Amino acid sequence: MEKIVKQIAADFSIVFRNEKLLHEAFTHSSYVNEHRHLALQDNERLEFLGDAVLEVIISDYLFHTYDTWHEGKMTRLRAQIVCEPSLSAFAKDCHFDSYIRLGKGEENMGGRQRPALLCDVFEAFIGAVYLDQGIEAARKFINQVMITKLNEDAFSHVMDYKTSLQEELQKNGDVDIQYILLNEDGPAHAKQFDVEVRAFGKVMGQGQGPSKKAAEQKAAQNALESLKK
Amino acid sequence: MEKIVKQIAADFSIVFRNEKLLHEAFTHSSYVNEHRHLALQDNERLEFLGDAVLEVIISDYLFHTYDTWHEGKMTRLRAQIVCEPSLSAFAKDCHFDSYIRLGKGEENMGGRQRPALLCDVFEAFIGAVYLDQGIEAARKFINQVMITKLNEDAFSHVMDYKTSLQEELQKNGDVDIQYILLNEDGPAHAKQFDVEVRAFGKVMGQGQGPSKKAAEQKAAQNALESLKK
Repeated sequence: MEKIVKQIAADFSIVFRNEKLLHEAFTHSSYVNEHRHLALQDNERLEFLGDAVLEVIISDYLFHTYDTWHEGKMTRLRAQIVCEPSLSAFAKDCHFDSYIRLGKGEENMGGRQRPALLCDVFEAFIGAVYLDQGIEAARKFINQVMITKLNEDAFSHVMDYKTSLQEELQKNGDVDIQYILLNEDGPAHAKQFDVEVRAFGKVMGQGQGPSKKAAEQKAAQNALESLKK
Repeated sequence: MEKIVKQIAADFSIVFRNEKLLHEAFTHSSYVNEHRHLALQDNERLEFLGDAVLEVIISDYLFHTYDTWHEGKMTRLRAQIVCEPSLSAFAKDCHFDSYIRLGKGEENMGGRQRPALLCDVFEAFIGAVYLDQGIEAARKFINQVMITKLNEDAFSHVMDYKTSLQEELQKNGDVDIQYILLNEDGPAHAKQFDVEVRAFGKVMGQGQGPSKKAAEQKAAQNALESLKK
């Protein structure tokens, strides 16, 4: 477990005061059941807390980021971000799948890769960070791991800035919006795309990304931000 | 509206920096629709935020108060506390029903007393407090208005300390638990009951309350707290 404590510190700059909380977050009930003599606590109480912490932090982020959006639209986007497929993917990004203490039965049934289980571990970890270091530390972790990723290719279906920009620009009728590839650079495994978005005969925003799609999303996001100013 | 600002300051010691947020919390969409020239914002965005803030504060409270409870039990209790009938009752306790700006149609249909509408206003108010003054101010309001009430008679079905005590004491087999009325005092409209709870031939806790039931709950709660020490 000492290794996990160090890895968490290295990856997220989170040094746990109470390391027991970190171990609890990574302890599945199946492990507790198979090691009753150790009198361990499983991660379900932390998951209960972390679920609510995650919800308020994402809600706060959406509220401030999309200040013209109506409640229904924010609720839909929140549901897409805070859902099992999304959270289990984030858990894997963080290598939490390799940290979980599982019972043998659960392990043999492939529990380590089960989305519901990974999602619970992700929320339990957030609960542990919140308890150990407070809500701002949990927000920092969520920003680092989730929010920054929301803009990347993998989550472009969720954070669809292109659609938002279209909605914004077409408020008063049809507008021709063009995404123009300015440049494509770098070796195959680390490509960099440069895109600009044009409307009303002028450049509305520019963006870079590891794919054309990601660069377009970034350009749309930048355009939306300058429109707000 | 100036009157409401003062009343909120008097009742909850919350002095809004941005009074617009307070007005927004008390503005129903039906009012916005009937006064389009005023370009007002209804309370639905604040409700989106307040809902999540309320959830995390209640979750945190339950997590720390019931430190031996399992996730499922906390989730059930949270659902009973954070539900429409409960939140609409709290909204009325706070006189929020008289502060709401409603459209005429909604008013004529009795909207001012509609539980769903009152529940939204309560959550929107929490969202406004959170935005204006931060999470600790929201927690203080929720403590004052909700948590203290949870122990009283009206919410004894929700915060059932008697059942919790029974579960705690009977972990290792049947135990005889007795609630004994020690004293009954005061005039009819302000009665005070004194109760003690006994088990294993000794006093486990004592409690006072405005009804026998409330005093028993309080005695059970005190017994649970001394068991934890």
